[in-house]
Amino acid sequence: MAEFHIPNDVIYLDGNSLGPLPYKAKNRALEVVNQQWGEDLIASWNTHDWIGLPLKVGNKIAPLIGAVQNSVVCCDSISVNLFKVLSAALKINANRTKILSQTDNFPTDLYMAQGLVKQLNGIGGNDEKYQLVTTDADVIFNTLEQDGNDIAILMLTHVNFRSGDSYDIERLTQLAHAKGVLVVWDLAHSAGVLPLSLSEWQVDFAVGCTYKFLNGGPGAPGFVYVAPHLMDSLDQPLSGWMGHKKPFSFDPSYTKANGIQQFLCGTPSIISMSVLDAALDVFDGISIARVRDKSIALNSFFQSCVEQLLGSSLTLACPFKAQDRGSQISFQHPQAYAICQALISKNVIADFRAPNILRLGFSPLFLRFKDVLIAAQILSEIISSEIFLKEEFHIKNTVT
Amino acid sequence: MAEFHIPNDVIYLDGNSLGPLPYKAKNRALEVVNQQWGEDLIASWNTHDWIGLPLKVGNKIAPLIGAVQNSVVCCDSISVNLFKVLSAALKINANRTKILSQTDNFPTDLYMAQGLVKQLNGIGGNDEKYQLVTTDADVIFNTLEQDGNDIAILMLTHVNFRSGDSYDIERLTQLAHAKGVLVVWDLAHSAGVLPLSLSEWQVDFAVGCTYKFLNGGPGAPGFVYVAPHLMDSLDQPLSGWMGHKKPFSFDPSYTKANGIQQFLCGTPSIISMSVLDAALDVFDGISIARVRDKSIALNSFFQSCVEQLLGSSLTLACPFKAQDRGSQISFQHPQAYAICQALISKNVIADFRAPNILRLGFSPLFLRFKDVLIAAQILSEIISSEIFLKEEFHIKNTVT
Repeated sequence: MAEFHIPNDVIYLDGNSLGPLPYKAKNRALEVVNQQWGEDLIASWNTHDWIGLPLKVGNKIAPLIGAVQNSVVCCDSISVNLFKVLSAALKINANRTKILSQTDNFPTDLYMAQGLVKQLNGIGGNDEKYQLVTTDADVIFNTLEQDGNDIAILMLTHVNFRSGDSYDIERLTQLAHAKGVLVVWDLAHSAGVLPLSLSEWQVDFAVGCTYKFLNGGPGAPGFVYVAPHLMDSLDQPLSGWMGHKKPFSFDPSYTKANGIQQFLCGTPSIISMSVLDAALDVFDGISIARVRDKSIALNSFFQSCVEQLLGSSLTLACPFKAQDRGSQISFQHPQAYAICQALISKNVIADFRAPNILRLGFSPLFLRFKDVLIAAQILSEIISSEIFLKEEFHIKNTVT
Repeated sequence: MAEFHIPNDVIYLDGNSLGPLPYKAKNRALEVVNQQWGEDLIASWNTHDWIGLPLKVGNKIAPLIGAVQNSVVCCDSISVNLFKVLSAALKINANRTKILSQTDNFPTDLYMAQGLVKQLNGIGGNDEKYQLVTTDADVIFNTLEQDGNDIAILMLTHVNFRSGDSYDIERLTQLAHAKGVLVVWDLAHSAGVLPLSLSEWQVDFAVGCTYKFLNGGPGAPGFVYVAPHLMDSLDQPLSGWMGHKKPFSFDPSYTKANGIQQFLCGTPSIISMSVLDAALDVFDGISIARVRDKSIALNSFFQSCVEQLLGSSLTLACPFKAQDRGSQISFQHPQAYAICQALISKNVIADFRAPNILRLGFSPLFLRFKDVLIAAQILSEIISSEIFLKEEFHIKNTVT
């Protein structure tokens, strides 16, 4: 708690969407703007090592996801990074043309795959050669087992954004590899809160965002993980100057950097990335296994409180046991939007996911059991009193 | 001057690489971190209109480049944006496969075109079908005239980063169109300091960065301009959720937004983009024509001072007349790196561009004639005394 600024009287159950402000990040924002930009100006590329920031931040994220040093780099957005790794993976698996994913994957992941496929088929002149194939979550394993030999890439999100359902990364990666399929994991809802062992699990590629459980600030840049043994055989098409082997030689021909830096593209947003860099220091000396223990405890405790107070009047839209879901709980309710607005009006910040999901996230670094109890009490009052039927809670915001 | 923080005793001739800190940007950084993120948290997407920021910032840039409202959007980096517009332009000009550029274009522009071509030829399976063709600047016009019917896209940077040479955008765009070629202009070294009339000149696509003459902060996000009449016929492959017609419907299929928002991809770095948004307010009520007048006056005055003090002992590496170059002057000298370091040691901040260019930029919003005179005096002392031969000025930094 002491590491974060949480507004007075607010119970923040949306750290899974936008993590709150770490004090370290606040201080760094001042420093990067006033001192580094304001006073030291262009020299900061050297004196404050702006040029090394993407790898430095990547190396702070690496231990949180079970990756070795220099296998993670921070850059661009998760969507842009997904395009890079999908392209790179297709190049390795050049005799295959299908990307397998889940129909209920986070939409932007599907959109990026659709964009790549459309580009290759369209201006690439390949008609319908490349395909994004999606199935329900519960048949992914079987689809892979049956049709795996035909698939280039398995692209999945570890923890589902609506339901909190999670995949067994290790098992699916093993099966994928047995079938000659490369894996791309999206860690948006797991990095910083679920134990991950990317190296040990032999994951090929992963992408993630840093504004959720990593508390890097709104729209903080994403990250890319690539298995070190793949580095030499990769090409990714967003080959900007930061990914060049010698970025300051101003050579007119692109030669990719040897390591993970080959996934860099243009000049990064230094202010946002610096703030993220400082935010990650909150994890110093903290084990993700312990974070997960507290996440499960908070999540289960909330569930028990709601059961005690409301019985079964709210329908779970997630696995029943906290151990089996990400650091969130979801309920489905035809009035989920209005219930969410009613919670917010009482300073319990949750979120709504279309069409009918109320989602509450448990970010263990700042949430206390007391917060979770109060939130459950307020939720039960809202449901029991049906206050959410009031018109004021039905006004739609742009972002919901 | 009053709008910017310039460190004491520093003469900053590198505003063409990283613009200095506007006080408005400094204040906004505090506000976006402390109030918007810290206090208002996730609600800021609505209450502080984070969701509308890319278009809001785009609409502030539009009048500075002679573009109509809603034809510019702020997002990603200039490199990533270049990939989007090159792909989109290739789709329209589908029966052509060549991108024409200048061999001495800014390297990252060439790298992005190389990445796209390699992707389409490689995993796209097109062998050598797509090509990036580069020529010297002085034969671009003739090449276009002779081989234009074979070219899909003309991709050029308005003002050359080394020499400050600039192209006649209107004339080249006219010739390109007469040959059925689409144009993509990079405005990195002209936006905010050279008068531009993209609409009037019928430019198809343009990209730019905002950390140079627009003073948006280190690595501030880039922008994309697209001619409104092209919007309906475009597809760009980096089709992330922000570019979706209904970003909050969580539809598994991508449907592009109608307008310039179709060029958005993932979640933007809100802190960096907010700082840029405030920085642009410095241009309120300022005409770019007047900015350019002062730019030419500062640039000519510096050149005259150097001529008076040093005669012809420094060789120009740019057009002779300030009117014919961007807001910079370049000299070539075998010891350009050491001269640059010696200048910096005397608080005159210039930069070096490999292999032998000393580059000094004139950002008219904060530079005074007095600054320019003192800079010329210091440069002449350094050259006359040959102090740059000292070993201390030959130690190479990472970023030079």
